[in-house]
Amino acid sequence: MTRRRVSDMNWIPAGSTQAEARGGAALAPVDTGSEEREAVEGVSRSVLHHSLNRRSFLRGAVAGAATLAWGRRARADAGDLGPVLSQIEKRHEETVARLQEWIRQPSIAAENRGVNEGCDLTMRFLREAGFEQVVKIPTDGQPGIFATLDAGASRTVGLYFMYDVKQVDPAEWSSPPWEAALVDRPGLGKILMGRGAVNQKGPEMAVLAALYAFRGAGQKLPVNLVLVAEGEEEIGSPHFPQIVRRPEVLAALGKCTGIFMPSATQGLDGQVMITLGAKGVIEVELISSGERWGRGPSRDVHSSNKARLDSPAWHLVQALSTLVAADGNTPAIDGFADKARPTSESERAMIAEGARRLDEKITKKQLGVQRWVNDASWREALELLASHPTVNIEGLVGGYTGVGGKTVLPHRAVAKLDLRLVPDMTAAEAHAALKTHLTKRGFGDIEVVMTGGYDPNSTPADAALIRAQTAVYRRAGIDPILWPRSAGSWPGYVFTGQPLRLAAGHFGLGHGGGAHAPDEYYVIESSNPKIQGLDGAAHSFAEYLQELAVTS
Amino acid sequence: MTRRRVSDMNWIPAGSTQAEARGGAALAPVDTGSEEREAVEGVSRSVLHHSLNRRSFLRGAVAGAATLAWGRRARADAGDLGPVLSQIEKRHEETVARLQEWIRQPSIAAENRGVNEGCDLTMRFLREAGFEQVVKIPTDGQPGIFATLDAGASRTVGLYFMYDVKQVDPAEWSSPPWEAALVDRPGLGKILMGRGAVNQKGPEMAVLAALYAFRGAGQKLPVNLVLVAEGEEEIGSPHFPQIVRRPEVLAALGKCTGIFMPSATQGLDGQVMITLGAKGVIEVELISSGERWGRGPSRDVHSSNKARLDSPAWHLVQALSTLVAADGNTPAIDGFADKARPTSESERAMIAEGARRLDEKITKKQLGVQRWVNDASWREALELLASHPTVNIEGLVGGYTGVGGKTVLPHRAVAKLDLRLVPDMTAAEAHAALKTHLTKRGFGDIEVVMTGGYDPNSTPADAALIRAQTAVYRRAGIDPILWPRSAGSWPGYVFTGQPLRLAAGHFGLGHGGGAHAPDEYYVIESSNPKIQGLDGAAHSFAEYLQELAVTS
Repeated sequence: MTRRRVSDMNWIPAGSTQAEARGGAALAPVDTGSEEREAVEGVSRSVLHHSLNRRSFLRGAVAGAATLAWGRRARADAGDLGPVLSQIEKRHEETVARLQEWIRQPSIAAENRGVNEGCDLTMRFLREAGFEQVVKIPTDGQPGIFATLDAGASRTVGLYFMYDVKQVDPAEWSSPPWEAALVDRPGLGKILMGRGAVNQKGPEMAVLAALYAFRGAGQKLPVNLVLVAEGEEEIGSPHFPQIVRRPEVLAALGKCTGIFMPSATQGLDGQVMITLGAKGVIEVELISSGERWGRGPSRDVHSSNKARLDSPAWHLVQALSTLVAADGNTPAIDGFADKARPTSESERAMIAEGARRLDEKITKKQLGVQRWVNDASWREALELLASHPTVNIEGLVGGYTGVGGKTVLPHRAVAKLDLRLVPDMTAAEAHAALKTHLTKRGFGDIEVVMTGGYDPNSTPADAALIRAQTAVYRRAGIDPILWPRSAGSWPGYVFTGQPLRLAAGHFGLGHGGGAHAPDEYYVIESSNPKIQGLDGAAHSFAEYLQELAVTS
Repeated sequence: MTRRRVSDMNWIPAGSTQAEARGGAALAPVDTGSEEREAVEGVSRSVLHHSLNRRSFLRGAVAGAATLAWGRRARADAGDLGPVLSQIEKRHEETVARLQEWIRQPSIAAENRGVNEGCDLTMRFLREAGFEQVVKIPTDGQPGIFATLDAGASRTVGLYFMYDVKQVDPAEWSSPPWEAALVDRPGLGKILMGRGAVNQKGPEMAVLAALYAFRGAGQKLPVNLVLVAEGEEEIGSPHFPQIVRRPEVLAALGKCTGIFMPSATQGLDGQVMITLGAKGVIEVELISSGERWGRGPSRDVHSSNKARLDSPAWHLVQALSTLVAADGNTPAIDGFADKARPTSESERAMIAEGARRLDEKITKKQLGVQRWVNDASWREALELLASHPTVNIEGLVGGYTGVGGKTVLPHRAVAKLDLRLVPDMTAAEAHAALKTHLTKRGFGDIEVVMTGGYDPNSTPADAALIRAQTAVYRRAGIDPILWPRSAGSWPGYVFTGQPLRLAAGHFGLGHGGGAHAPDEYYVIESSNPKIQGLDGAAHSFAEYLQELAVTS
């Protein structure tokens, strides 16, 4: 899924999903919207202070042609989407059934469960959608997919799919995660509940629904497609570069205008955000152990021994305390942020505009915070979020961690960190800087295990991929917020970096929730006038492909 | 049980007893021997470099009168113990049956399980042993026992019992913990396996066996007895002062020469150690939370927010790093150790003697260490252990603690610390110093929760209680190691402090293992020539009482 950042880990029931929420991936999304919409954490459910053109939205409860009315106003220089929209409506039940079939096939890389079956099923759907070439790509991990659809069009567009999903604890779900049941939810309408519903099978199926509709209407696609898919997104895409960097895949992607991941980008208020890239990240474990240090015990011993034994836990605390400045925020790792690019004028302008449109109070409430660092203003806080590299403690674990105390001197203590990177920092350089910094200060024995990492990625605001998004959203009556950089991360660097240097992003109307959490859902038939259901999402993808065909 | 320190937490099977091993007590004993023997951590299973007078020990496999032969040489000015020893032997089966009955009654304060039944059973045993007054003492927690036995003797001796035991996970035991089965163990002989076997019902039953034997032999006890017992030792004796500080209990204890806890003090090499006190301790949790701080999040949020949010985890790390000096060892809490009494000449002499007799290599191997702090010598390391106040991290826990990473910014992080105290530091002053220190440095928001604490305690080497121990051990052919202070802790301060100022310690031949661990045992019939079984332990108590009657 998109590397969503999450304003509300509290959506995860306490004590239940901690263990399942991660398997080593670089980022652990939990929330519902897309990277773009949620680039400013807490924004997803903000009331955005702009006037929605509600006339362009329809009561979601009203199914049928009316739902797609906004599409009737598609730009005159593109083909007529009428027959395609009719096909979307006509094939609604068929699309829902396909999505249910997809969800009913668990495909969990972290548990090595159903991954091959999930890959095969995805390949079948792609073939049915019109891809002529659909190839399974082996990797050192789970297989990927490379697929192409030649429509004889002049432009080619890339699609990034994931076919794996996050683990589940069925006991936490109000409807079984693999049942993919349709449920009525007041305020939203008819939703499909199941693991992968929004992350990412729902939005991906909405794209396929658009492709089925073009075929059904007997119309050629307005663009050619190149699709790459992976089955390890939820464990941090460790082998995704192996898929993308195959010569035939590089060659095909090299022809693309850009590449996007289908997403359900709408918040409950219908609003969307377009991000022009994402921070990079490395996740590391700092492991201090007596064995490796050669000081202190090599197994937990009684705490009275502290009088005569060094403590790997204190050693870790002392190492950690060198990594940030006295403010507890500014990274103090030597050379870490040397290549951090300062915020540009245009980025500052976007942030100022965002600060005007986004609601600080609601964001603070959603995050459960009273103050930003250094008592920064809203605008300053947003700028920090978009542009500041960070050193964060994800977790501390050492010795006795249960209720009360236990008088041990632990032989081992671990800090789990994530470091966020901005252009032109790289994951490899950040990792190296951290190791050098520790060694220079006498902490060279502390093991630095990098469990995942992405470089930052950037896409220019004037890329056709982005301008086409803006155009389609605007036609839907939405004035999207343009944002310089998501504070979360996703493997977009594989596309935006060398050698491809593609524009990359996320797109799609629609809404869902519960990614990485129980009761994950995707809206099938919306009763909320502000958000689109499955057909509306498919429609947005049809429009987007058409728009990309004519945007230069 | 005695606040045993433990050189080998690795006796606890991984992942099984961590949760059960503590309920908030100040020290988490795991090993088998007594405080005295194990005051120098790792000593318990050291090969001590002194010559045991093996003639005075008997092959444990040989039951009957011969087992008690060493007692026949009791000092001439005391009464003849012959009839008492015969009674010990004669009543062997009866004593074993009583011990089994006791162990088969679980009494676990942490689980509020069988505590009243355990208290009642203990009271019955005391009555049967000749205590005329046996009173249940209510507290704000579990009840204690106050019992007196007036033998018309000129001297009165105190006994400290615990009737509660540590939790169990029956799945980890080779013989069920509540079955109290007799098991043959090569190298040891016939052992009784069950929860509480050595910690502390076995040694306590050996004392009662001595009392039954005096009665059976028609002999008056050589001393009067005052016994106090508690049922919350395993959760840190939170209400023990309520028992001891009742006027009638204080009055009775005030008449005592001193007070001792029955223990199985012998290591596998037969050696014993006599400690002249114990360090005090406070256990505290330092809790850093966004809610209390008013900065950072009040629930876990996505880690990308670090760019604009303060981190309670970093706040904790920064607070912790002020608590010890750059060496990671020397306490740096303002005023914490101001009252620490320097090591005296006589203490230094004991330590030097101990350093000669104790084996550094074996201790290092048992602890899994290569070096002492500051590359100290063996003698220096032992002196630090006996005399150095400490600030130890027992545990660190915050945010995501599972496998791999999870991109959260935790709203809360906790450090579990124990601080060891030497005379004349006190638990209350240490707690206050820590709080003041943190507040002064801008960490006043960090909650300091004290979960347990004992003052240090000291007993002079020339106290009758101690000299009588030395005499009895020497008659058994053991040259005990005299040690200034256990680095572990036990609630002896309740006796040694105001207003009682009693001598306090531990005594008893015998051997056991597995306290706070699976397969806890106590040796009933020893096949090891160096250690005594149940009858030999009972014999040692009979001798000790006789010795106390004539030691002034």
